[in-house]
Amino acid sequence: MPAPDRRRIILDCDPGHDDAIAILLAHGSPAIELVAITTVAGNQTLAKVTRNARAVAELAGIRDVPIAAGCLRPLVREHATGADIHGESGLDGPDLPEPVEPVDPRHAVDLIVETVMSEPAQSITLVPIGPLTNIALAVRREPRIAERVREVVLMGGAYHRGNRTPVTEFNIGVDPEAAHIVFNEPWPLTMVGLEVTHQALATPDVLARIAAIQGRAARFVLDLLDFYGGTYRERQGFAAPPVHDPCAVAYVIDPAVLTVRPTVVDVELSGRLTTGMTVADLRSTAPESCHTHVATGLDRDRFWDLVVEALANVP
Amino acid sequence: MPAPDRRRIILDCDPGHDDAIAILLAHGSPAIELVAITTVAGNQTLAKVTRNARAVAELAGIRDVPIAAGCLRPLVREHATGADIHGESGLDGPDLPEPVEPVDPRHAVDLIVETVMSEPAQSITLVPIGPLTNIALAVRREPRIAERVREVVLMGGAYHRGNRTPVTEFNIGVDPEAAHIVFNEPWPLTMVGLEVTHQALATPDVLARIAAIQGRAARFVLDLLDFYGGTYRERQGFAAPPVHDPCAVAYVIDPAVLTVRPTVVDVELSGRLTTGMTVADLRSTAPESCHTHVATGLDRDRFWDLVVEALANVP
Amino acid sequence: MPAPDRRRIILDCDPGHDDAIAILLAHGSPAIELVAITTVAGNQTLAKVTRNARAVAELAGIRDVPIAAGCLRPLVREHATGADIHGESGLDGPDLPEPVEPVDPRHAVDLIVETVMSEPAQSITLVPIGPLTNIALAVRREPRIAERVREVVLMGGAYHRGNRTPVTEFNIGVDPEAAHIVFNEPWPLTMVGLEVTHQALATPDVLARIAAIQGRAARFVLDLLDFYGGTYRERQGFAAPPVHDPCAVAYVIDPAVLTVRPTVVDVELSGRLTTGMTVADLRSTAPESCHTHVATGLDRDRFWDLVVEALANVP
Amino acid sequence: MPAPDRRRIILDCDPGHDDAIAILLAHGSPAIELVAITTVAGNQTLAKVTRNARAVAELAGIRDVPIAAGCLRPLVREHATGADIHGESGLDGPDLPEPVEPVDPRHAVDLIVETVMSEPAQSITLVPIGPLTNIALAVRREPRIAERVREVVLMGGAYHRGNRTPVTEFNIGVDPEAAHIVFNEPWPLTMVGLEVTHQALATPDVLARIAAIQGRAARFVLDLLDFYGGTYRERQGFAAPPVHDPCAVAYVIDPAVLTVRPTVVDVELSGRLTTGMTVADLRSTAPESCHTHVATGLDRDRFWDLVVEALANVP
Repeated sequence: MPAPDRRRIILDCDPGHDDAIAILLAHGSPAIELVAITTVAGNQTLAKVTRNARAVAELAGIRDVPIAAGCLRPLVREHATGADIHGESGLDGPDLPEPVEPVDPRHAVDLIVETVMSEPAQSITLVPIGPLTNIALAVRREPRIAERVREVVLMGGAYHRGNRTPVTEFNIGVDPEAAHIVFNEPWPLTMVGLEVTHQALATPDVLARIAAIQGRAARFVLDLLDFYGGTYRERQGFAAPPVHDPCAVAYVIDPAVLTVRPTVVDVELSGRLTTGMTVADLRSTAPESCHTHVATGLDRDRFWDLVVEALANVP
Repeated sequence: MPAPDRRRIILDCDPGHDDAIAILLAHGSPAIELVAITTVAGNQTLAKVTRNARAVAELAGIRDVPIAAGCLRPLVREHATGADIHGESGLDGPDLPEPVEPVDPRHAVDLIVETVMSEPAQSITLVPIGPLTNIALAVRREPRIAERVREVVLMGGAYHRGNRTPVTEFNIGVDPEAAHIVFNEPWPLTMVGLEVTHQALATPDVLARIAAIQGRAARFVLDLLDFYGGTYRERQGFAAPPVHDPCAVAYVIDPAVLTVRPTVVDVELSGRLTTGMTVADLRSTAPESCHTHVATGLDRDRFWDLVVEALANVP
Repeated sequence: MPAPDRRRIILDCDPGHDDAIAILLAHGSPAIELVAITTVAGNQTLAKVTRNARAVAELAGIRDVPIAAGCLRPLVREHATGADIHGESGLDGPDLPEPVEPVDPRHAVDLIVETVMSEPAQSITLVPIGPLTNIALAVRREPRIAERVREVVLMGGAYHRGNRTPVTEFNIGVDPEAAHIVFNEPWPLTMVGLEVTHQALATPDVLARIAAIQGRAARFVLDLLDFYGGTYRERQGFAAPPVHDPCAVAYVIDPAVLTVRPTVVDVELSGRLTTGMTVADLRSTAPESCHTHVATGLDRDRFWDLVVEALANVP
Repeated sequence: MPAPDRRRIILDCDPGHDDAIAILLAHGSPAIELVAITTVAGNQTLAKVTRNARAVAELAGIRDVPIAAGCLRPLVREHATGADIHGESGLDGPDLPEPVEPVDPRHAVDLIVETVMSEPAQSITLVPIGPLTNIALAVRREPRIAERVREVVLMGGAYHRGNRTPVTEFNIGVDPEAAHIVFNEPWPLTMVGLEVTHQALATPDVLARIAAIQGRAARFVLDLLDFYGGTYRERQGFAAPPVHDPCAVAYVIDPAVLTVRPTVVDVELSGRLTTGMTVADLRSTAPESCHTHVATGLDRDRFWDLVVEALANVP
């Protein structure tokens, strides 16, 4: 039975290599109770990322956590996948058995709404680490969740430099309208963007620490990082790959992992060059009413300690 | 028991004076089976238009038709009401008792999805006569409805001249992103826009015909048109008010009411002057694959005959 | 020597078949003094349209009228020609000898500025019948011309239906930023757009009247219309080709040729579907301060009478 | 007589406190030949900044350098001044006598075109330190200057953080269309933006060095910085004011002052939040064909040494 002070999260994801590690981190951390996993079209099609989420969960021995599929495509724009980084399957590299446990019959949006509305107020934290389509749909479908969730901690956005375009990050760029909705709701929201995730590099010393862990999960992560490191090297010139999504989970586990500051953020929807940009006003102190925070720094050691400890907890 | 060939519709509305007449037309017409009424923020707030829908239904003796409230606000933009035309209540003018029948407990989006998915394929026609927020959310929440509805016949848009701005019509202008979603789904869709609804004017001869009908409903409509005619005269310089929404219902009853042509239509989302414009390509013949039709002409006599007959059928 | 009451115009053009006819109309009409011809990249490249303007002038025996080349390309956007309609030369069809008279050494923008500033105030009318790049540059370079010209009568724009896209006309669509500048300057401006020029069709009866005129110019026009009619038939499905540009010149000769109404007009610059659209507010009466007029109707007979008379005056 | 290897520049400016220092730096540096000063509406109206440029030139004893006034307003947008920083006069603070030397009769655009076309190819460097309206108009009026100037070194833009809005810098934000034109011409162009100019802070040690210089110019600069430091402190929370414009001049004097890298840059024109943003692609190495450089670092000591030396050379 979970300790009463574990943080209860719904992880909304599109696995995706770094999503897979985020799932393992959430599952392996004693500070997190994984209430549900929901999936969304992003790094690959909904069918593929849902299959991947289930397969990762089974590999990790995650049981009794519903996994529900959500939106097939972004709200307004056509869906463009991240196959250049994640491959055709969305999780190329490791050999992962087909999952056998059934997917939850509910739509992810319904699962999110029902869970938030039925669990105690302020008890559920949403952790979206893919495009924000499900979360946007959920809050338009049931506006009261905006006051009922504890907070939203999302991986996405960038205030200095993008990866999908010069100034837009992938998750936000895939569904900018959804992001606009989510950033403008009044819930406490923390944006964990490229400025910090590009510091979460799986460098050789990190790989060595993971290699030292026994068990299937750690080997699986090494296989993941082998493929993922390769595409990041070839496509984006990174010496070591940035492990984006676990940063958001790590912040929920231990806020000291990130430096954050209150910052007004909005999402550009009509720029020819900038649609999907998270426009953060870093010029001065945010007003008291500001409900959004932006992560500006990562404590790398603390971050990797959390990941390594969690992987060690997964068989 | 309804005749098997009655057209079964979900009327998605925001009453609204012309919405109220559309409800009466749908209820009074022997050719329509009103499966549900759903409401959406538009002419007024969701609370007000839902109250109005229920009050109109009770006045008309509509029973056993669920009335469900939907979206509180547009997908992305702030909500701007049509209070200049419809007044503070959304239905200023007539004295309408407070409704007593409860609202359906379901969200409009859920009701739409459940109804379309549980009724036979191609049996349900969606008739949205307010902003398209509910319909957009429904098709993103359950994409299969796009192939399962018979068609969408909507009041909204304009290809020559707007009413909210020089080139945008109110329903589309209130929620352009929702309209973009709805127009781009593959279902058969007919846009009943201002070019025809501005021909559906409640001129003195029309008022005289309605005045000759016995019963509460006809008197209610006269009261509606008295107020509505006044605001249209003052705000938009119309000698007689255009009765937009019933045009879409009338087309479902009898397609001969409108002249329509297959036309490619898209919705502008990023213009400074044109956001919310329905951009219709009227330059040449639409391709075979075109799934959207645009109404270009109204048979006024036939239209008012349908309205008058329906009102005579309502006690 | 010109009668003192002849309208003195600078014709800014991009010949172009209909531009060529506009030149002949201006030259052949006793009511016009052609002060200068200036050219701009539009229907074809600047080099080609300047060559064409000179060749047409020489064919028509136009002497002592400076012909100056202007802008090579639109202000901000890449130049897209109208070769689909006007052919590779910009004036495909007729056999036209190479011009021998030299082009004026001045840049068109300088010529416009110098002429307007040195001639009496309110004496010069600008008649742009191509993209508005030269005019925009001139008024930014010398803002005082906005108060010094008599008026601007331009061929361009559309308030109902475009030809370049569903809602944009070619001249405005080629350089929307220039059009935005020109429409927003305080000079009296009349927009002669597609709503009237699509009524100026060179139908067989018109061709017969031109064929009955003796002389080189009329034969040249017949050759022009033969090619131009062919491309309009093939590319845009017109039974007879619209002769756009002479409509603006005809209005200067005799305002009774067009019905015009004061109308607020602006130009869309940021729409994905609508950039280059002339957004005209036709919903109600324009305010007193409105300096722009929009042409809404053409007196076809009067128009073609003017053209035929002018052609008869050209040897 | 200037040494043959002095860099010959046209300084296009809108004084403006930092513009005034840039003028003094250019005049006082033995490495620069100031060929002309041109003015443009920016920090204040054209009339005010032209008066200021003349007054600064007279204070500094600048003779035989033409000063020509240019564009009254941005190409497309309404002009918004920088009065919050520079005061009502555009140069509030110091007591500056009215200038007596006449302004050059030419328009700045003509002066730029004539100078570049008449001087040897590759001999003139354009140094715009205000909105880019004059430069844009010049290159559209005479496209050949794009191949004839040596290079363009401009103060403007930002790739991380704006000052006019969260992501736009003042000079670019005032006239984004002009900036779009200038950045997209094929000339070698270096963008000296906020990332480096916000390092050029007039801190107390800098003020002390200037205070130690004898002469009117240094005292004038101290008075300038007193006012300018005050508005920057109050409006933007800077402890010491950034002296933007001289950074561009300093780079012409000694390229070692700045670290620059080849970077593809474009200017956003249609964003609701981002119009006027310089979108720089810093994700990877620019292609060989890239003609734009972005400044990424400032050698503060070297920069202030140049300024102090130049001020010491001005009486």
